[in-house]
Amino acid sequence: MALAQELWPINRSITGRGNRQTLMVIKKLLPDLRIETVPSGYEAYDWKVPDEWFVKEAYIIDPEGERFCDFSQNNLHLVGYSEAFEGEVTREQLNEHLHSLPSQPEAVPYVTSYYHRQWGFCISHQDRVSLRPGTYRVVVRTEHFKGRLDYGELLIPGRSRREVVFSTYICHPSMANNELSGPVLATEIASSLSQTNPYYSYRFVFLPETIGALVYLSKNLAALKKNTLAGYVLTCVGDNRCFSYVPSRLGNTVADKSALKVLGQMGIDFKRYLWKDRGSDERQFCSPGADLPFCSVMRSKYGEFPEYHTSLDTLGEVVSEEGLSGSREFYQLLVSELENNRFPSAVHVGEPQLSRRNLYPKTSVKGVYGKTAALVDFLSWSDGSHSVSEIADLCDISIEEAELFAEKLLHLKLISL
Amino acid sequence: MALAQELWPINRSITGRGNRQTLMVIKKLLPDLRIETVPSGYEAYDWKVPDEWFVKEAYIIDPEGERFCDFSQNNLHLVGYSEAFEGEVTREQLNEHLHSLPSQPEAVPYVTSYYHRQWGFCISHQDRVSLRPGTYRVVVRTEHFKGRLDYGELLIPGRSRREVVFSTYICHPSMANNELSGPVLATEIASSLSQTNPYYSYRFVFLPETIGALVYLSKNLAALKKNTLAGYVLTCVGDNRCFSYVPSRLGNTVADKSALKVLGQMGIDFKRYLWKDRGSDERQFCSPGADLPFCSVMRSKYGEFPEYHTSLDTLGEVVSEEGLSGSREFYQLLVSELENNRFPSAVHVGEPQLSRRNLYPKTSVKGVYGKTAALVDFLSWSDGSHSVSEIADLCDISIEEAELFAEKLLHLKLISL
Amino acid sequence: MALAQELWPINRSITGRGNRQTLMVIKKLLPDLRIETVPSGYEAYDWKVPDEWFVKEAYIIDPEGERFCDFSQNNLHLVGYSEAFEGEVTREQLNEHLHSLPSQPEAVPYVTSYYHRQWGFCISHQDRVSLRPGTYRVVVRTEHFKGRLDYGELLIPGRSRREVVFSTYICHPSMANNELSGPVLATEIASSLSQTNPYYSYRFVFLPETIGALVYLSKNLAALKKNTLAGYVLTCVGDNRCFSYVPSRLGNTVADKSALKVLGQMGIDFKRYLWKDRGSDERQFCSPGADLPFCSVMRSKYGEFPEYHTSLDTLGEVVSEEGLSGSREFYQLLVSELENNRFPSAVHVGEPQLSRRNLYPKTSVKGVYGKTAALVDFLSWSDGSHSVSEIADLCDISIEEAELFAEKLLHLKLISL
Repeated sequence: MALAQELWPINRSITGRGNRQTLMVIKKLLPDLRIETVPSGYEAYDWKVPDEWFVKEAYIIDPEGERFCDFSQNNLHLVGYSEAFEGEVTREQLNEHLHSLPSQPEAVPYVTSYYHRQWGFCISHQDRVSLRPGTYRVVVRTEHFKGRLDYGELLIPGRSRREVVFSTYICHPSMANNELSGPVLATEIASSLSQTNPYYSYRFVFLPETIGALVYLSKNLAALKKNTLAGYVLTCVGDNRCFSYVPSRLGNTVADKSALKVLGQMGIDFKRYLWKDRGSDERQFCSPGADLPFCSVMRSKYGEFPEYHTSLDTLGEVVSEEGLSGSREFYQLLVSELENNRFPSAVHVGEPQLSRRNLYPKTSVKGVYGKTAALVDFLSWSDGSHSVSEIADLCDISIEEAELFAEKLLHLKLISL
Repeated sequence: MALAQELWPINRSITGRGNRQTLMVIKKLLPDLRIETVPSGYEAYDWKVPDEWFVKEAYIIDPEGERFCDFSQNNLHLVGYSEAFEGEVTREQLNEHLHSLPSQPEAVPYVTSYYHRQWGFCISHQDRVSLRPGTYRVVVRTEHFKGRLDYGELLIPGRSRREVVFSTYICHPSMANNELSGPVLATEIASSLSQTNPYYSYRFVFLPETIGALVYLSKNLAALKKNTLAGYVLTCVGDNRCFSYVPSRLGNTVADKSALKVLGQMGIDFKRYLWKDRGSDERQFCSPGADLPFCSVMRSKYGEFPEYHTSLDTLGEVVSEEGLSGSREFYQLLVSELENNRFPSAVHVGEPQLSRRNLYPKTSVKGVYGKTAALVDFLSWSDGSHSVSEIADLCDISIEEAELFAEKLLHLKLISL
Repeated sequence: MALAQELWPINRSITGRGNRQTLMVIKKLLPDLRIETVPSGYEAYDWKVPDEWFVKEAYIIDPEGERFCDFSQNNLHLVGYSEAFEGEVTREQLNEHLHSLPSQPEAVPYVTSYYHRQWGFCISHQDRVSLRPGTYRVVVRTEHFKGRLDYGELLIPGRSRREVVFSTYICHPSMANNELSGPVLATEIASSLSQTNPYYSYRFVFLPETIGALVYLSKNLAALKKNTLAGYVLTCVGDNRCFSYVPSRLGNTVADKSALKVLGQMGIDFKRYLWKDRGSDERQFCSPGADLPFCSVMRSKYGEFPEYHTSLDTLGEVVSEEGLSGSREFYQLLVSELENNRFPSAVHVGEPQLSRRNLYPKTSVKGVYGKTAALVDFLSWSDGSHSVSEIADLCDISIEEAELFAEKLLHLKLISL
């Protein structure tokens, strides 16, 4: 929550100073975070990185001289990527540039227009309907210029080159569940993983949504395809409501299977969405041609909770310590599950001689075989195509026992992982 | 029916002048039909093209001097490929060369002996039993000589190199359902398809059955294996009785799936035969080593209707305008189904930028994504392994809508087909 | 039974004179049996062939001067691979070297200690509890020395290089079901197969269990992987109780499918075990890296019948003529099933011209096709991926008829097998 509070006021977008500030704050907690940059105009597949956007100030002065929709009060008031404008307009002219939600009269909505130049303000519907006729002075002091797009990347190397990837996004301004919860949880997971000596490598990417994911794919697709065991988009993980699962496109990847297994183990209800319900960067990671094994486990899914994409999505009311902790618990269990998800390969043809390693009774007496049967069974499935947890199922032993076997056999150089 | 009537009297066989005449009549309607030729003795796998056969005249004169079994009255009277013979025989000797059907006393049967030299006549059983003792004069003026085997081939090029193949045969003399209906329907389908600008290429082959199919395979197998999306043997498509389906050997090819889907859409009863019930050129096209995706949709299947392979299989009684029209309707729907059966591949990794193509809202406001979700969904399944109709199912949209999406995305160069 | 009686008294172990004697007895019945040898110290994967073991004499003298646990009376009395020892011990000291089964007080258990040097005796529990206090004289005159490990191998060449492998073991001393029944039945099957001219090649291996199987694999794995169609471990095939089936690791190999099919045809009850219930040389043959298609069909499974690994496992009481005969019947049917299990490949694309081979009516008359339909059907499935018995099912003909077709078509060079 402390990190979330520190990041809260920063004006994030798909480019700009706010993103760099955000990454620098995270880098204080994750010193190995690398901040990567591509220039405006960089082409990623069908897309081009737009000009960088900078907001100096933005507000409206009403006929009585009162300032409102002040960007410095709440960065949601200004439509994302608004172009500069200064001048006087009638209430009717102003209205064409205002966005509000009649169904949520107290909420300031979140609106962006990245690829189409316009200016606009977001306002609560109750304020909007109380605007009186007259002349309004509009001040939008923004700049668009050839700049850059920034993203953060952290690799926690494991003993294996195979990677678990967590992707989250840093393009949303002051909203809590969507999306401070993702970067905050990613930072927390990365921070605790970096204290361990994991088997798999773990990669964390902090991207502007969509354009950032495409930029990242355009630079790293071959390596991702080669190394990714499982990937997760971290988003909407801060509210303490029901868990939600959005599958990968192909639906039965290691990412999906592991996530579903852990959700099952936790014994909690969760909403199971379909691929067609997706809405975050799995849209890019799972697209034809990329086909990476990415899915999402969230709390309330984007688009499904009332505060979504409005000023009501706040720290405290929506995102809570309990909500973040519940998600952290899930992802801790998921990491354990994945760490168990290794694919042992027996080093020798045939069974190894376990008796000289004190793993088999030295004297062969009727009935003693059963005692070491599980270890021998484990070995018999160590054919490089079954994971440790699959082998646990095949041998009808617990994952913990299977993991102990894997460690023991690895130590004895009887399997490779 | 007009074409059927024009083709009716011609004496077709597996080689000979009648086949060339038949192909020339068809070529008047399909000017791009190519007539291909191989010489007698040409080897096709295990087979050799036999000598060409020509019938000058053939008849029998009874003891009273009356001519009967006259080839010029009905070409079914002479056993196909009969060798020349002139001489006087007793009724008993003659009987060894006569073929009739006791169970269908009014019918002249259709009998051939392509690869074993003999002579013979076919006669109705009621005429046969009324033959009186005495001396019969037999005149079979036929010639076998090194000649050629002819077949016709027409390609209607589409935008795709992938082909739908229709194969029919031109080796049956004066019988209507088996087999004037096949060439007549093939000509009709080819003629109307040539007015369109189809997506797939369509190939029509008019072959002598078995030996012609083998000759054709021997010259075109590699190309057929590379290009054929689906193939159909057109036979017995002229009677207005129940539809019949004979599967390909492997049973679940695109040819089968599309045929069954259309039969289902038409909501009609049809007899579903098994591979072991086959009996036409799918025997060659689906053989091991060829393994082409060919099946048949007929009306009454060969061998199953009483008039089959007799003089009773006539235009009017068996084949009717309604029968041919019903088959044409099926194959028109089948072509539509196949045309929908394209396999889009997204051109770009990741989602394309739809907003600059006016396919996505320029301003991102809560709730607007849903409106373009179907198009984005369509793109997400455009991975080259799902057909347009499969994608329609996956996205829960109609085939018509999916087809519109495919056209739009193809036009925008966002997919290839 | 005669062979079993002849082999009964010989002291078999994983190495030694008894094994050579056993192989020589079998070689009298199977003159082509090759006796292979590897030296002590030979390395097979993770294992090393131990020193050879020779027993001169072994017994204990009780305080009254009575000799008991005499190896010359019953070779089970001495723990397998016991080291030499001569000396006097108290009853308490002796007890630490005795093995008995309280739950089966009349049985002398079978105990070995191949890879850990110790000495020990096996005694019935009722005798053990009647031992009085006092001084016991122990005589174990054994030798361990650099010698050799012997095994037998017989190939009955068939027309195909593909092999059916039967493996059995020769390392058990005087016990009947486990394991004189295996070598005896293997000898019987080999003997009768060598009178025939089989299609497949048949390989019989007589090995010391585990170390022998590993030695054999280390010398022959590549050839086994290339040639083995199916393999069976012959063990516990002599008692006339319920049949048992232990699958291969992968579970659906030709070995498994054929065994299950024959068990089904015999219409008998059998116990279906799981891979985790295994316990003989399929442990090596099916291990990752070997992955050979081996399973077992036994009568009572090792470990599951009360006499297992004790002096109660005798000829007469446990193993009977009826028991061995029942197993022989199963394996005879299995060989027939496998012999039918060939994979014909059509030589020609398309149907061959059967009429010039008198396999098809020379004159094509309505209705005659049906008569040769089955042969043509057989050919249509001869695509190299269906076995003769699978084709029999597909064509709805008997296996005998399908086999006749295969012979005929092979003779005509229309298929290869």
